[in-house]
Amino acid sequence: MAAAGTEAGGARDDGYLARVIRVLEVFDSELTALKVSAIAGAAELPLPTAYRIVGDLVSHGLLGRDVDGRIRLGSRLWELANRGSPLEGLREAARSELISVHTATGFHTNFAVLREGTVLVVDRIVADTDLRNRSITAARMSALRSSLGLAMLAHAPYAQLRLAIALELAELPEPSVGERDAFAVAEESAKRELDGVRRRGYAAQRGQQDTNTMGVAAPVLGERGLAVASIGVIMPVDTTHAAELAAAERLRHVAGRIADRIDQGQAGGAVSRPATRG
Amino acid sequence: MAAAGTEAGGARDDGYLARVIRVLEVFDSELTALKVSAIAGAAELPLPTAYRIVGDLVSHGLLGRDVDGRIRLGSRLWELANRGSPLEGLREAARSELISVHTATGFHTNFAVLREGTVLVVDRIVADTDLRNRSITAARMSALRSSLGLAMLAHAPYAQLRLAIALELAELPEPSVGERDAFAVAEESAKRELDGVRRRGYAAQRGQQDTNTMGVAAPVLGERGLAVASIGVIMPVDTTHAAELAAAERLRHVAGRIADRIDQGQAGGAVSRPATRG
Repeated sequence: MAAAGTEAGGARDDGYLARVIRVLEVFDSELTALKVSAIAGAAELPLPTAYRIVGDLVSHGLLGRDVDGRIRLGSRLWELANRGSPLEGLREAARSELISVHTATGFHTNFAVLREGTVLVVDRIVADTDLRNRSITAARMSALRSSLGLAMLAHAPYAQLRLAIALELAELPEPSVGERDAFAVAEESAKRELDGVRRRGYAAQRGQQDTNTMGVAAPVLGERGLAVASIGVIMPVDTTHAAELAAAERLRHVAGRIADRIDQGQAGGAVSRPATRG
Repeated sequence: MAAAGTEAGGARDDGYLARVIRVLEVFDSELTALKVSAIAGAAELPLPTAYRIVGDLVSHGLLGRDVDGRIRLGSRLWELANRGSPLEGLREAARSELISVHTATGFHTNFAVLREGTVLVVDRIVADTDLRNRSITAARMSALRSSLGLAMLAHAPYAQLRLAIALELAELPEPSVGERDAFAVAEESAKRELDGVRRRGYAAQRGQQDTNTMGVAAPVLGERGLAVASIGVIMPVDTTHAAELAAAERLRHVAGRIADRIDQGQAGGAVSRPATRG
């Protein structure tokens, strides 16, 4: 998938860096400790290449080795990526508001940004409840299939919606109508949904992630009314409309407070503009 | 500092990776957005090399570019490093206990691990107080000059203490006694302090980080009684002994609960053994 690059000659190490990233991409919250052979398979790299790259990364502490030889992400990588990261600053700016929502409601509380038409979960507080929280920190979710995503898409450049729809359609096994038609149909439906989000000031989705849950989320709005992030909770699907409104009101309130904190620069420059390419 | 490596021939890209890491190392909570020339200076790289490496990293999203051309850590790097990271799992296992301590006491609450004889801050909840919290997430602190570090050193392999002392001595401008003597003196004093920590079950330091604060911390103990992490609060320096004891008791209690959660595997394999090399 990644270009082979020109490893020889020292012209560009782009191919090497691309392979390093493919190795790191293999790890997620389910796959935290892997044998090199499994890494090679998942990253689609020849075994000797995988051994060489894993060896390089281990020697620099970006990967770590277990007693049984399995490979994990290393704490040096965690340190390099988080120290001074705009996302870490954003996370910290939102932290106390997440705590206040979680403490007051007892629900799973999630915080996310929009990246390339998907929801990147930046932080979460897991509640002691039977309800499942599919948001996982540093993992991505469909923007159209989560209230966190809808809350942001309603206040994002159109390119983000187009990307989100394209990603959604790419997941379908086979379009039942022509590809152009499928996009138009999805776009029409998404636009109607986002109109509703803007009108109400928050996003809600019942039974989308799990049949027994609903997500409620509010956007954190920055410059020019664009969404910088969103904050949401996971509630039981049979929540009354009054309770939904109360949760939404609370989320809108804390989203405003988070926006204020970001304006005051507490997020360490976390407010990069949403990507507008594409 | 880093070996030049053999960039040509494709034998090892070690030199390239070392330079990538030097670029990433430049960023911290104070330096979040930098011009390439500043990166080159801080990383001690020739300007063309810095431009090339920054360009590679930006093209893969590991670094991002501001509208004014300044460079920041990219969200792709944050995502790769955090998704499936043992430290992120550990952070999440401790999260609700940090919240409970913070909510009950109103103090800054910090959570850390021991790495190469230093304290690596894994998480913190910042309180609305005049007291300063010098713990910064993903930053390192002296292990001997923080209660978080002492709590762990008291239950760590001796190699960690030796490293911590060596790092401490390296910071001194000139040893007033012979180098071997300086180490022996520091070792003697540290051992006495760590004996006290083990006896009391917690670490406390008054006026070390700031004249008006004291740190109180308890170790999170894992296999074979070794410290996996520590949790601590920042209190006013004039705290009564009774209040110190109450805080320590609370911290020891939640440290035990965090250890239980880790045992139950909720930390996603976060409990790698403390480094014992050296």
